[in-house]
Amino acid sequence: MKSTLEWTGGMAFDVELDGHTFAIDADPQFGGTDKGPKPKGLMLSSLAGCTAMDVASILHKMRLDPKRLSVSAEAELTDAHPKVFAAPITVVFTVEGDVPPDKLWRAVRLSRDQYCGVSAMLRKHAPIVFQVFLNGAEVPEPTE
Amino acid sequence: MKSTLEWTGGMAFDVELDGHTFAIDADPQFGGTDKGPKPKGLMLSSLAGCTAMDVASILHKMRLDPKRLSVSAEAELTDAHPKVFAAPITVVFTVEGDVPPDKLWRAVRLSRDQYCGVSAMLRKHAPIVFQVFLNGAEVPEPTE
Repeated sequence: MKSTLEWTGGMAFDVELDGHTFAIDADPQFGGTDKGPKPKGLMLSSLAGCTAMDVASILHKMRLDPKRLSVSAEAELTDAHPKVFAAPITVVFTVEGDVPPDKLWRAVRLSRDQYCGVSAMLRKHAPIVFQVFLNGAEVPEPTE
Repeated sequence: MKSTLEWTGGMAFDVELDGHTFAIDADPQFGGTDKGPKPKGLMLSSLAGCTAMDVASILHKMRLDPKRLSVSAEAELTDAHPKVFAAPITVVFTVEGDVPPDKLWRAVRLSRDQYCGVSAMLRKHAPIVFQVFLNGAEVPEPTE
């Protein structure tokens, strides 16, 4: 697995990954021109994407078809260099549709505890908290 | 710092990060349609991008202007779930132009050892090896 970046001037790079290309860039105060997102946030996109695809796949196998499935990953940055994610990293699932809450949490747990390699790597740096919202209300994690 | 993903059907999601949007998707054998790169590789794009921007910025402060600056990050995946990067993760700088090799390594070391937060987080999972190629030849890391 490999990603290659080519400098396009200033702080901007073209990112090649899996045959697809997109730009990354820095903020103007750091010499960038905002041609694309910043690299550090791609760690959060990776985390959200990894667990989101797991859950989409597991819900599909359960023959459940949500109307909406949104996943965000969020973290504060430390002040000192190297600037890293401060604990905890938070992953929030927002689901709408006819999905039983226990099955939704089962899918999220399977990803969190068994399948999502990005979670497994990143949690060596900081704990990751998972939250689930279903049809507008938070669903606490089942105790068993 | 936050990234939010919205499901667009199948295994595809639209990723929002820093006001920019791009698609991610799975391979066809996992139910995807290759609308974008896969999420796990974004960790490698993030790593390469973080250290690439550090080095671009440091070379600029050194008043050095390479003709080409390319940075790749590569890792094998483990066979067992959760599939994670097997050690080591490799970062390769490919630089062309009138850049003194000792200054190039100084920039790479400053990123690796002091500035790059993605390296600092990911190296808690697996060691990261940095290599430098300048004008077609590998430049070993100075011993002091």
